[in-house]
Amino acid sequence: MNINRPIIAISMGDPAGIGPEVAVKALSQPHVYEMCRPVVVGKARALAEAIKIARLNLTLQTIEKISQAAFRSGTIDVLDLKNVDWQEVVFGKISAQAGKIAFEAVRTVIELALAKKVEATVTGPINKEALHLAGHHFPGHTEIYAHYTNTSDFAMLLIYGHLRVIHVSTHVALRQACELVKKERILKVIKLLHEACQKLGIKSPRIGVAGLNPHASDGGLFGAEEKEEIMPAIRQAKSLGLAVEGPFPPDILFPMAKGGYFDGCVAMYHDQGHIPFKLLGFNWNMVSGSMRSVNGVNITTGLPIIRVSVDHGTAFEIAGKGIASADSMIQAIEYAAKLAKIEN
Amino acid sequence: MNINRPIIAISMGDPAGIGPEVAVKALSQPHVYEMCRPVVVGKARALAEAIKIARLNLTLQTIEKISQAAFRSGTIDVLDLKNVDWQEVVFGKISAQAGKIAFEAVRTVIELALAKKVEATVTGPINKEALHLAGHHFPGHTEIYAHYTNTSDFAMLLIYGHLRVIHVSTHVALRQACELVKKERILKVIKLLHEACQKLGIKSPRIGVAGLNPHASDGGLFGAEEKEEIMPAIRQAKSLGLAVEGPFPPDILFPMAKGGYFDGCVAMYHDQGHIPFKLLGFNWNMVSGSMRSVNGVNITTGLPIIRVSVDHGTAFEIAGKGIASADSMIQAIEYAAKLAKIEN
Repeated sequence: MNINRPIIAISMGDPAGIGPEVAVKALSQPHVYEMCRPVVVGKARALAEAIKIARLNLTLQTIEKISQAAFRSGTIDVLDLKNVDWQEVVFGKISAQAGKIAFEAVRTVIELALAKKVEATVTGPINKEALHLAGHHFPGHTEIYAHYTNTSDFAMLLIYGHLRVIHVSTHVALRQACELVKKERILKVIKLLHEACQKLGIKSPRIGVAGLNPHASDGGLFGAEEKEEIMPAIRQAKSLGLAVEGPFPPDILFPMAKGGYFDGCVAMYHDQGHIPFKLLGFNWNMVSGSMRSVNGVNITTGLPIIRVSVDHGTAFEIAGKGIASADSMIQAIEYAAKLAKIEN
Repeated sequence: MNINRPIIAISMGDPAGIGPEVAVKALSQPHVYEMCRPVVVGKARALAEAIKIARLNLTLQTIEKISQAAFRSGTIDVLDLKNVDWQEVVFGKISAQAGKIAFEAVRTVIELALAKKVEATVTGPINKEALHLAGHHFPGHTEIYAHYTNTSDFAMLLIYGHLRVIHVSTHVALRQACELVKKERILKVIKLLHEACQKLGIKSPRIGVAGLNPHASDGGLFGAEEKEEIMPAIRQAKSLGLAVEGPFPPDILFPMAKGGYFDGCVAMYHDQGHIPFKLLGFNWNMVSGSMRSVNGVNITTGLPIIRVSVDHGTAFEIAGKGIASADSMIQAIEYAAKLAKIEN
């Protein structure tokens, strides 16, 4: 394969959301074709509609296998899913059919990557409820990837600028997230972050670990997880030669990370990492009542294949309006291309 | 009293930290004396040292009661605590003596406000461990104020720009914070936020309430607190005529708030509110290895007296160096003056 322009399979996401729109918007940028050879996996009908609402001057080429793709800027290669039907796009509507398409697109890009037909995968946003209506009971993409690649040790890594945040847990209730703050898992996640930073070209990453409790428990005044789980994990990571510091009060760690003090951060639960990440990367538009821009990407670490995702949802409320920001999708493709080049 | 220039008592904080430094730096600004009549409560010796390390051209006047204060820019009026001793400043050192001074300063400003000798209070940063060594077992300022003013329904409100965040709980372990997400408390906090916004001049504040769980539980997929506690509280607040929306996914609420969508936000626990607040208001300085600037204030709502605080700690690591940012202290005095004018 051409390591200078890796082949990247993009799952288009739920067709009732903004996934197809951000995919075609991203692929309308000539520079995307300079860094990779992209192909979209989904339904040509949905992508044609997306090209129309985004007012783009692009053509579609439907292909049945990757070898048929032309990878030429101006024409989007679509691997059309044969086993699911999709006649009419109804934006903003949760449906089993849309969930089925979204799921099949994800499953297909995973298969393509496992079969080494593509060198990296990028995922558009899916709707969990639609997924469940279609009979696929996964909490999210990450778990689908883990299942089909038979991976047990993985973690969600969010990247925006030099803010890189990995998560000890993600889609669980906060009470359960407290239970999951365990030494073994924290150590695993520190290692995954260290490796991910190295793959991104940072030789000796400096890692900061957040506490679970306010003020990182203030020396044990409120909460014992810092002393019993987090500090032992940090000590062990240090003994392995990793440059790890913490636990820091969570509300101090992230301002420090914003200022460039760390190459990567460990968040103890979903929102501890997602709040600072989206606060910096997302910009609200008061007039449209939606996000003006959404920056940042989501990488699943620990998988045998490369998976980078947009970091936003289906945004049903603005689907079909042509106003969705493709920034995150473009950045996801850039990261996928970068990771594919380093791994090959 | 002169409502155009309210009298404000400032507790200087722990003398081993940056409290005295930020107090004298704030009072070196002539505009502070145009909006209020400030007096510092603490030890003259510590403030003299702070003036020296900050290289300020200010004099100190020690007073025994408020009526002796001159309130003239260029001379700081200090109400010197007689019942505690303080000979030598040892910066960055936790001690019972420093804790005792910090505590007595806080107790004194509360007494002055209750006795209506001053119209508002502002607090410098204290060290919890020093406080405990001195025999005062409070988790923080807020609880000291609640105790001495005999207040049971209070909440911490953080303000930076148009980000106003009130907290359902603060200095408790995250596990316990989950337990404290109860309808009655949430409703109380919504009301306190509504009143606080009105006192700040916002007639009909628009309030956004965060969920507790990631994605606000995604319709109940992870966690039940949204359905069982938060939504009933929001419904009841709405029935009282308040403009309340939610629960929002926490990582979406704060980007929306940053964009100006809400006048105030309700955070379910300490870090949910503190992380976005400090991420926006604090700026890390890579060279000095400390915060270059710290913006924002902390207001205790629900008290019979006005209390505004800096939103940072004692910063022992940079105490005595003269590099502490007084931004937050200046903003705290501004808010105290504003609130005092509105209440009188």
